[in-house]
Amino acid sequence: MKKVKLGADTLLYPMPAVLVGTIVGEKANVMTAAWCGIAASRPPALSVSIRKERHTFKGIEQHGVFSINVASTDLATKVDYCGLYSGRKTDKSDLFELFYGTFEAAPLLRECPVNLACKVIHTLDLGSHVLVVGEIVETYVSEDCLSHGKPDPVKIDPLIYTTVTQEYRRLGGVVAKAFHAGKTLQES
Amino acid sequence: MKKVKLGADTLLYPMPAVLVGTIVGEKANVMTAAWCGIAASRPPALSVSIRKERHTFKGIEQHGVFSINVASTDLATKVDYCGLYSGRKTDKSDLFELFYGTFEAAPLLRECPVNLACKVIHTLDLGSHVLVVGEIVETYVSEDCLSHGKPDPVKIDPLIYTTVTQEYRRLGGVVAKAFHAGKTLQES
Repeated sequence: MKKVKLGADTLLYPMPAVLVGTIVGEKANVMTAAWCGIAASRPPALSVSIRKERHTFKGIEQHGVFSINVASTDLATKVDYCGLYSGRKTDKSDLFELFYGTFEAAPLLRECPVNLACKVIHTLDLGSHVLVVGEIVETYVSEDCLSHGKPDPVKIDPLIYTTVTQEYRRLGGVVAKAFHAGKTLQES
Repeated sequence: MKKVKLGADTLLYPMPAVLVGTIVGEKANVMTAAWCGIAASRPPALSVSIRKERHTFKGIEQHGVFSINVASTDLATKVDYCGLYSGRKTDKSDLFELFYGTFEAAPLLRECPVNLACKVIHTLDLGSHVLVVGEIVETYVSEDCLSHGKPDPVKIDPLIYTTVTQEYRRLGGVVAKAFHAGKTLQES
């Protein structure tokens, strides 16, 4: 398999397309982010990379809390809108139905199937972006996205961002069972 | 939409299923990671969360470099194998064809469609896991995964991990065009 060198590039697949909820000044704001991932299990933590000049970053600095909301595919247009237009000029406070959990300054988006209320525990200035590490203090899931009491990825129907081609995609079918498929190699 | 509280949980969709390449001692090792994401664009950087006790973490501490390799769905069994069995007891050095780019201690996996050679620029001890931030210094893509000279997500066919149900899944179809679909909301 011949390889082509593309220089230093941020080429990772897949990326989530999540919505970051904050209060900036007195107003709720929602920003789209694809550079987000889980960071630890004890304490449960995630990281999200945000440009310093973003309106959302102001809210995170101001209150030290934020929310990460997993978007479903039916929200693609709103997700894209929240990535295109800054809260500095565009009021996005009534784009979603908001609710509040543990933190008054971390608005949660009811239409999103999964909502994580987060408290900032570290920030790391990397240059273009600040890596914000948040402790996940509460998790909310839409009741209709559960199967046998557990979050069901098919019902959650998460929006996926693919870089370079700049598309939102959906989750595809099951390829293999994790923590299981690889055992066949050990036995062979 | 009624919400159910699930406590603090690492519930994010989707997650990638990548392979981390290191040299531990003198031997190449490969570990599976789902907690990985892009962290910055200048310098291009990513983060990957690794338990301190992992064999891979030893290699990262020893050499300060590692690789992140995007796995395609046909590698699901090998990916799962690399998550199930530690390099401490299992020699995984000949599971993939290895090649080397910028760094002698960051083996790249030829079968994987995308390979990122990384240099550690930060480590953040979060408790259960260390968040390793790596500057991406070179990107390699399999030639047959390019369309019109650019990485094609359909040809890359990345493996996706879904938490709770513990499945590997494939990428689904296009939902909307990013940086475009949301403009309709602004005009309305």
